[in-house]
Amino acid sequence: MSKEKPSIPKGTRDFGPAIVVKRNYIFSIIRRTFEKFGYLPLETPAMEQLSVLTGKYGDEGDQLIFKILNSGDFLAKTTPADIAEGSKNLIRKISEKALRYDLTVPFARFVVMNRNEITFPFKRYQIQPVWRADRPQRGRYREFYQCDADAVGTNSLLCEAEIVQMINETLTNLGLTDFTIKINHRGILAGIAEAIGEKGKEGEICVAIDKLDKIGAEGVRKELLGRGISESAVDKLEPLYTLSGSNEEILQQLQTILGETAEGQRGLKDLHEVWQYLAALQSQALTTQNESGNARLQLDVTLARGLSYYTGCIFEVKVNNVAMGSISGGGRYDNLTGMFGMPDVSGVGFSFGVDRIYDVLDELNLFPDNAEVGTQVLLVQFDKASELYALPLLQQLRDAGIPTELYPEAAKLKKQMSYADQKNIPYVVLIGSEEMQTGKLKLRHMKTGEQSDQTIEEIISQIKKQH
Amino acid sequence: MSKEKPSIPKGTRDFGPAIVVKRNYIFSIIRRTFEKFGYLPLETPAMEQLSVLTGKYGDEGDQLIFKILNSGDFLAKTTPADIAEGSKNLIRKISEKALRYDLTVPFARFVVMNRNEITFPFKRYQIQPVWRADRPQRGRYREFYQCDADAVGTNSLLCEAEIVQMINETLTNLGLTDFTIKINHRGILAGIAEAIGEKGKEGEICVAIDKLDKIGAEGVRKELLGRGISESAVDKLEPLYTLSGSNEEILQQLQTILGETAEGQRGLKDLHEVWQYLAALQSQALTTQNESGNARLQLDVTLARGLSYYTGCIFEVKVNNVAMGSISGGGRYDNLTGMFGMPDVSGVGFSFGVDRIYDVLDELNLFPDNAEVGTQVLLVQFDKASELYALPLLQQLRDAGIPTELYPEAAKLKKQMSYADQKNIPYVVLIGSEEMQTGKLKLRHMKTGEQSDQTIEEIISQIKKQH
Repeated sequence: MSKEKPSIPKGTRDFGPAIVVKRNYIFSIIRRTFEKFGYLPLETPAMEQLSVLTGKYGDEGDQLIFKILNSGDFLAKTTPADIAEGSKNLIRKISEKALRYDLTVPFARFVVMNRNEITFPFKRYQIQPVWRADRPQRGRYREFYQCDADAVGTNSLLCEAEIVQMINETLTNLGLTDFTIKINHRGILAGIAEAIGEKGKEGEICVAIDKLDKIGAEGVRKELLGRGISESAVDKLEPLYTLSGSNEEILQQLQTILGETAEGQRGLKDLHEVWQYLAALQSQALTTQNESGNARLQLDVTLARGLSYYTGCIFEVKVNNVAMGSISGGGRYDNLTGMFGMPDVSGVGFSFGVDRIYDVLDELNLFPDNAEVGTQVLLVQFDKASELYALPLLQQLRDAGIPTELYPEAAKLKKQMSYADQKNIPYVVLIGSEEMQTGKLKLRHMKTGEQSDQTIEEIISQIKKQH
Repeated sequence: MSKEKPSIPKGTRDFGPAIVVKRNYIFSIIRRTFEKFGYLPLETPAMEQLSVLTGKYGDEGDQLIFKILNSGDFLAKTTPADIAEGSKNLIRKISEKALRYDLTVPFARFVVMNRNEITFPFKRYQIQPVWRADRPQRGRYREFYQCDADAVGTNSLLCEAEIVQMINETLTNLGLTDFTIKINHRGILAGIAEAIGEKGKEGEICVAIDKLDKIGAEGVRKELLGRGISESAVDKLEPLYTLSGSNEEILQQLQTILGETAEGQRGLKDLHEVWQYLAALQSQALTTQNESGNARLQLDVTLARGLSYYTGCIFEVKVNNVAMGSISGGGRYDNLTGMFGMPDVSGVGFSFGVDRIYDVLDELNLFPDNAEVGTQVLLVQFDKASELYALPLLQQLRDAGIPTELYPEAAKLKKQMSYADQKNIPYVVLIGSEEMQTGKLKLRHMKTGEQSDQTIEEIISQIKKQH
């Protein structure tokens, strides 16, 4: 047996009680919102067939998939030639399974395998960890949770509107008030490319525009020219970076610019319909202003995520006045399951970045007081007599639904108090010889230091009142 | 891209919405009970260093650990000699990480790494999947959840009593009534071995006795003799299989048999103390009889689990009148972290087998009515006009906290109704032209087929009343 000091793999984390409790708080709010909108939970195994994952994330992605070594004598079916061909070729011979890399491909695999049992539209959410062999760095882990919600099997733009609603409701319930839900449409981006004389080049344009925040308009200009976009096209493009006014005003300006392009028209029509849905739903995303004075939902023609996959509306969410990337994003796609030979499954989905949301809530001090989670009362004992006296009280408190502990040994008072302190237990009950005689127990409120003598019934009713 | 029909790895499972909801129901009851007793959640990464896991589960266990192939050119650091040595030796060269095999070793690793920050006694629970390369078969999976609770850093037998309480409370809250919590003690087993003249042979005796249910007394006799236990010892042992009477009576008989042995005395003393604690806690495990007329808590001297690890009390739980192995088990150990060079961390723990509990609840029809989970109301639309009319109602229902969906397209009535049916949605609201004129909507209760005309306010108050 190894006696060296144990460690955990780079890029992974242990979550102790205080952190699990906070993370579960986030998960439970996300879960509740998803379910309110009719999305139901799905869970897939951590391991997938390697063949299911390979080729779905590009060459770079393939390399970041964690592969699982076949059990037993994995070399048995290999030849010296297999080994001579090197690691990349050998993988297929010695590994058949791999760890989930995202939740989308397993979801697609599930839909294909269960196509005959599933009732469409199928609205599922999935909250599970994924694993990536990325180089670990601040805020980037090799094991992290994704929270996806997708509705597949319908083209209705009500789903897009409801995604805006779910984002708004989840973040509001988490206590966030100043955030922006950016929306754009693949058709708008294609229309822009066409309108400036670079039809079909929206891919190149988007990659460059995406860096606007980082490198500024001048930087983007250089990059666009470098990518073969003509100078006159760039001249026509630049005014779009700073389209201003309300969403309606921006839509009107776009109508003028994109009026002639079929893709632009498609984008505008879809966005109009999303807006109509949201208006009918009296959406706070339209009616609430964030601190900058803009509406929460913001049409942003420079928003350009995952172009190759998305085909309709795209979303991204930023918390304002916090140094943090987007905490949510998604969009509509045409072809979820084509990779497995099942065509025409369209849908729309989005996901929350739980690690980032955690950091934002932490920074803004938005986690609710821990008091309600974990043990509420610690009974302190001094000797066998007080322990025996405490046992029925312990049971009484628990029967009343109050999480309670009796310190399991007659340790020094200081040690027992420090246990309560470390575990953030709000109340301590001291049971000494006087207390046992009178039945009046000493109740100490740990935060204020206040002490009072009360019967067990009084203590129970006081603590229950606080909740 | 592969277009072949995708599959999932042998021994793994997808959990669709209906199953996730039921599993989460079990988890939430377990969680709530654990927290009521002061146990707090811990989560460790799915991947551990292979060196942390190797050598902890015996040779057979080592082979069942899923190893993760190093990323990148994993062959780069190997030599032809490494490969010539075969799979077993090559593993260390091409794999540094592995999947969690149980929750105990990661817990021990966590305690050692955080020994200076942890306040002892440390009471943690952990509900996470583990992975084993076992041959899959009915009821045995390669990915399955474990639910562990452990209290380390105290020798107090209050912890043992509280484990009995937690098992009793969890199973009771799950609706189970007829179950037996078997308890035994390592000292009793050692004392028995000594008393029959085979001191130190309790390991061999236990392996044989453990098969009593399967092969009967005659079979056990053969096995004992085969394992080198003398005939006179077996003669003395056999009456113990059928010790009868109440727990108190069995304890008294044991007192006579084991009176002279130090280990036997230790076991009896500990069990007495556990009983005292339970009596003071007015434990239902003592006061409730199961259908056979015995108390729920049953001293069983033939109970013998994981002897090499446990050192004090041991537990096992069986649901009576159901063909299913034990659904929970555990015990006290002396040395959780010795494997990592940190001595003297004793504790006691147990775990629930969630897959088995699931099957038992399913068989006994104890899952609560699904009605409360998932969508409560489906709004059915017939055309654009009824869709627009429905949108504010949708929002009103959701604002009232009622999970509601509007079918996202004006599909045929039959299709929308079958969607409600498949998703187990209890109420459907039909919005036709008449309904829009009068404001009286048609509310249909899906199970009974009952229909009535109601305003949205009446519908909301009726549905809220049901919960």
